[in-house]
Amino acid sequence: MAPLALTMGDPAGIGGELTLRAWQELRRKGPAFVVLDDPARLRTLAAAMRLDVPLREVNGPEDASRLFPDALPVLPVRLTEPAAPGQPNAANAPAIIASIEQAARLATSGAVGGVVTNPINKAALYHAGFNHPGHTEFLAEITRATNRPVMMLACPALRVVPVTVHASLRNAIASLDANAIVEVTRITHQALIHQFGIAMPRLAVAGLNPHAGESGALGDEETTIIAPALSQLRADGINVSGPWPSDTMFTAEARARYDAAICMYHDQALIPLKTIDMHHGVNVTLGLPIVRTSPDHGTAYDIAGQGIAAPSSLIAAIELAAQLARQKT
Amino acid sequence: MAPLALTMGDPAGIGGELTLRAWQELRRKGPAFVVLDDPARLRTLAAAMRLDVPLREVNGPEDASRLFPDALPVLPVRLTEPAAPGQPNAANAPAIIASIEQAARLATSGAVGGVVTNPINKAALYHAGFNHPGHTEFLAEITRATNRPVMMLACPALRVVPVTVHASLRNAIASLDANAIVEVTRITHQALIHQFGIAMPRLAVAGLNPHAGESGALGDEETTIIAPALSQLRADGINVSGPWPSDTMFTAEARARYDAAICMYHDQALIPLKTIDMHHGVNVTLGLPIVRTSPDHGTAYDIAGQGIAAPSSLIAAIELAAQLARQKT
Repeated sequence: MAPLALTMGDPAGIGGELTLRAWQELRRKGPAFVVLDDPARLRTLAAAMRLDVPLREVNGPEDASRLFPDALPVLPVRLTEPAAPGQPNAANAPAIIASIEQAARLATSGAVGGVVTNPINKAALYHAGFNHPGHTEFLAEITRATNRPVMMLACPALRVVPVTVHASLRNAIASLDANAIVEVTRITHQALIHQFGIAMPRLAVAGLNPHAGESGALGDEETTIIAPALSQLRADGINVSGPWPSDTMFTAEARARYDAAICMYHDQALIPLKTIDMHHGVNVTLGLPIVRTSPDHGTAYDIAGQGIAAPSSLIAAIELAAQLARQKT
Repeated sequence: MAPLALTMGDPAGIGGELTLRAWQELRRKGPAFVVLDDPARLRTLAAAMRLDVPLREVNGPEDASRLFPDALPVLPVRLTEPAAPGQPNAANAPAIIASIEQAARLATSGAVGGVVTNPINKAALYHAGFNHPGHTEFLAEITRATNRPVMMLACPALRVVPVTVHASLRNAIASLDANAIVEVTRITHQALIHQFGIAMPRLAVAGLNPHAGESGALGDEETTIIAPALSQLRADGINVSGPWPSDTMFTAEARARYDAAICMYHDQALIPLKTIDMHHGVNVTLGLPIVRTSPDHGTAYDIAGQGIAAPSSLIAAIELAAQLARQKT
């Protein structure tokens, strides 16, 4: 199987140390990956953190799987200036962007099975002309995605997909519409089949209001927006249920009845996910022509370079990307 | 110690069967309670469900603790018509109301340690002139509460208090104000000291928006409403922290840092509580001069009389009421 491509992320953040630790954890059992990063900075980091991680520079991903048990394969992407933990440096933005771009192209060509992205800080990239709201939109452009990319958060116990994401709660409610629910649910349905290998996905759609509106007594979005979306999805042959009261839909019993929950706003999706499993949440981008996952945390400048950042979410992201790459049809 | 008073609740709901099962579970170890119910209907119910529960009619709660290991003490409140599971009957509304009223008076006088209420259906009571939004407001009136009553949901792992409760999410946001946050937090602080026996309560206040507004980028209620409330509470010497991003504040690690979470809306409080512990959630009314708890579910007409309703939440409500009654200062 083709290895995965792991991006550098912001070299002032925790990505580098997580990469080194992930290699230590996965070198024997895999999945194998090649990191697109600056070998000099990784070497300095490993030395500073007393991590025994031999590096092996490669020109492409071809030998990565074979080399992986003995050394971390690095496809060099050189930084302009040395990285300092906790101190983002605009001079390094081109390398950060190049790492993402090359990884995406390797995935598009099939040379790697998928892309796992280390965290970036968009503000630090804007100076270098990066004008995408985030990783996801940038990857959609590079890979010429025809769908709207959709964010799923997944842990072994739960998959959630928020219909509205980074907006105030007030604006999330105002922007909620039936078309968006239909589109997001349809993309999730397709991804569950083609990436997750679930032949007949069961999707549970959350209500917006307490008790899912209690027949209109506590809000009408369930009847005016969500129910029409569900009708349309059912007409398309998609197995959806809901709108469910969101307080009772994330218990273990309820979760057993669906493969993914479609949520109306950010915290409705992320409260249950992080409450159930803070350390193994993985961000999966659905609707791209390539497999792409990322850890469920940011650059964490405040603890970068201290060696205390937990690699559990990055490792989970690598493992899930490999699983999706195997399933991909 | 004085026994607790348990109300009848709606006799068409699951309250009666839960009461019988709770007695079976608690008869040996306690806490002891007296139920204010119709002995004839409980006897019929026990026979129909083949539950071996001897009843003992009493005139007051005085002997309840002594009798409790051998029989369920019943302080008779007679129904007008026989109860039929799943079929609410307005003719029985006066008895349902009388059960609540008598239980509250027994608690006010100190004859019982506190009140545990079985679920009612307000719609079925309106015909009988019951004009309170719910149990809680009715109890506030009977006990001449000087505070606004505040709903806490508690399970062994978490206590949450929503500032806004039964409103659409849109209206909850519109109605959020600093005074309400201050009042609810203050009442919670007092209750944690005087009912829960926590000398120096630590309160964590949730933000409203994703990432607690991300410094204003995702909404401004954190800066315009919540932060001023926190300042005022701190000036009053109350130990509050926040506003916290609500997706990460309910992990086990985060929960270890506070005694109760003050939440901005219903599902922000109830998603984590029910996700963590669906079966042992207890509703506690803070700000009343008496101890009052209730199970975290409704009348469940759809399964009433089938003997499949789980008594775990009612039992947890009885146990917590006893604990609060012991602590009460």
